[in-house]
Amino acid sequence: MSAARFPAEALSAFSEAALRAAGADAPSARDATRAMLHASLHGIDSHGFRLLPHYCRAIGEGRVNGRPSPRFRSTRAGSGIVDADDGHGARGTYLAAAHAVELARASGVAAVAVVRSSHFGAAGAYALEIAREGLFGMVVCNSDAFVRLHEGAERFHGTNPIAAAAPTPGRPWLLDMATSAIPFNRVKLAQSLGLSLPEGTASDENGRDTTDPARVAMLAPLGREQGYKGAGLAGLAEVLSAVMTGMRLSPEILPMLGPDWSTPRRMGAFVLAIDPAAFAGAEAFLEGMGRYLSLLRGSRPAEGGRVLAPGDREWEEAARREREGVPIDPDTLASMQEIAAAASIEMPAAMTGTP
Amino acid sequence: MSAARFPAEALSAFSEAALRAAGADAPSARDATRAMLHASLHGIDSHGFRLLPHYCRAIGEGRVNGRPSPRFRSTRAGSGIVDADDGHGARGTYLAAAHAVELARASGVAAVAVVRSSHFGAAGAYALEIAREGLFGMVVCNSDAFVRLHEGAERFHGTNPIAAAAPTPGRPWLLDMATSAIPFNRVKLAQSLGLSLPEGTASDENGRDTTDPARVAMLAPLGREQGYKGAGLAGLAEVLSAVMTGMRLSPEILPMLGPDWSTPRRMGAFVLAIDPAAFAGAEAFLEGMGRYLSLLRGSRPAEGGRVLAPGDREWEEAARREREGVPIDPDTLASMQEIAAAASIEMPAAMTGTP
Repeated sequence: MSAARFPAEALSAFSEAALRAAGADAPSARDATRAMLHASLHGIDSHGFRLLPHYCRAIGEGRVNGRPSPRFRSTRAGSGIVDADDGHGARGTYLAAAHAVELARASGVAAVAVVRSSHFGAAGAYALEIAREGLFGMVVCNSDAFVRLHEGAERFHGTNPIAAAAPTPGRPWLLDMATSAIPFNRVKLAQSLGLSLPEGTASDENGRDTTDPARVAMLAPLGREQGYKGAGLAGLAEVLSAVMTGMRLSPEILPMLGPDWSTPRRMGAFVLAIDPAAFAGAEAFLEGMGRYLSLLRGSRPAEGGRVLAPGDREWEEAARREREGVPIDPDTLASMQEIAAAASIEMPAAMTGTP
Repeated sequence: MSAARFPAEALSAFSEAALRAAGADAPSARDATRAMLHASLHGIDSHGFRLLPHYCRAIGEGRVNGRPSPRFRSTRAGSGIVDADDGHGARGTYLAAAHAVELARASGVAAVAVVRSSHFGAAGAYALEIAREGLFGMVVCNSDAFVRLHEGAERFHGTNPIAAAAPTPGRPWLLDMATSAIPFNRVKLAQSLGLSLPEGTASDENGRDTTDPARVAMLAPLGREQGYKGAGLAGLAEVLSAVMTGMRLSPEILPMLGPDWSTPRRMGAFVLAIDPAAFAGAEAFLEGMGRYLSLLRGSRPAEGGRVLAPGDREWEEAARREREGVPIDPDTLASMQEIAAAASIEMPAAMTGTP
């Protein structure tokens, strides 16, 4: 069954209306929608509008404060803390990114910790905002335990993403990666399609490799035999987003999928901005990024392969989806129809024709 | 053939004397030795005293300025640049780490770019200095092209390490990883022992996987099927250490192993320090790191496995080598004997008995 496709603007309008109906104030609905739109446009469907029903429930049942008063305070010339007031993660983290940019322009480099936050979607959305302002951005967060340690047999870290973005003469360089080998979505997809998983990417309840999606109890850290590197990178995200902020460690975070939907999850995130003007200079940085990407994209591919820079595939997908619409999977579509009926919101009109 | 073992202090004294004889001033000999000692003690032999003959040659033939005047200038409240004056990478990078700590204590977070630098050894040595001062440290650098891109068939990035370190109630948490799947040393070791390499870690001249060390023309990025993550992380190191500093990109760096030993290599590095006192607070950070490591080390291992925190294995090895001496491989030992004879320096006395 092929997915229905919708214009991005129509999905965004529906998302804002649905979040408002669930109890979100205008800035929260705007920021959560913006983060989902980023993911849906760039092909990261796991963090796109698929999350809308989840966010509506989290706001409706009280886990996420729909009307937060996020507060920023600067602690030193290059540092600050955003208290997200248990609001949506996007609300606090976009605010943190904006303050990090402002502080970094004055101090050269700046970091803003986000405290009392919640699930924020794709980390790359916030790093990208910093790159759009001409600075290098890096954003990390942790999440509830889903990934074993190297040689471990228990869920420990979350998929703990590391995102980084940099301005270039063209579209930003954009790295946004989970520190697990694969996302859990890949497991669900393999299961529904009757496919096997790649070796060494997921494990059974005893921490042994399994390629059978039905037997997956946890994900493996990135790197297989070098899984200590993936687990170490998850740790880097953990130390900055949970320990540096004083928020919950991955094994302490209440599960994203319930059963508790009313207790705030006390998640942290960490946002870093570096102003090239304080180092090589803004122009030299752009020139260097252009030279780097030109060399990279010109590097000889293996037979049948294609060499891409981080973000290239996502920018291509965004251009396609701007033209052809954003696909919405059947389960998400059904949830949207329920929301539309319950809150008397009009469903967006699907695009017609074969893309 | 088992390696000869030497007391760390005796090796350090020999190293300083050899570097001085090659033309290094006292601070350069001290810092280069300190970086090699860090690696040799912690079991990272690829970056330990094995590099001493290499560094002596680089200084002797002019590639590395043995008597540099490294200069630091602060560019903003939280940023600065160390011009390493083409000296040894350790000289400029220890200086950068010290300034990053000082700036971060005032600004909350600080970054120092190192320009006109050279090979600095193990990145973890510098991140660790920051952690010893009670701050979170992160250090990246690039190096000459040795690692293909994802789906690539050409050496592009260096092994571009990412190192991070954090203070804890005990020994620092210490992550120091190449963004390639394996180090080139592992290839050489497999070849000399007649062993195969793990699948997906190295490639032949066409970028195809090979497990035969004799056919290895380049290393693979970390992650195998997810090699775009390893290549992306190499890019993160590249952007900060080469583009942000205005220094050479990996494919532009003169090869470490010659034939040119007289031209400075114009390498960059990037050092970041984050003061927990500007975020959760120094005490809360230590408490959080203690809780994190306790949960991590208590996480259930897979059968026959062992769960470790980044650095645990290295600290164990350091304790062992403090007691039993640092092993020196036969090739390095022969080079040391040549240096000793040529410069009339006394060889250190090997330890006797079976450890």
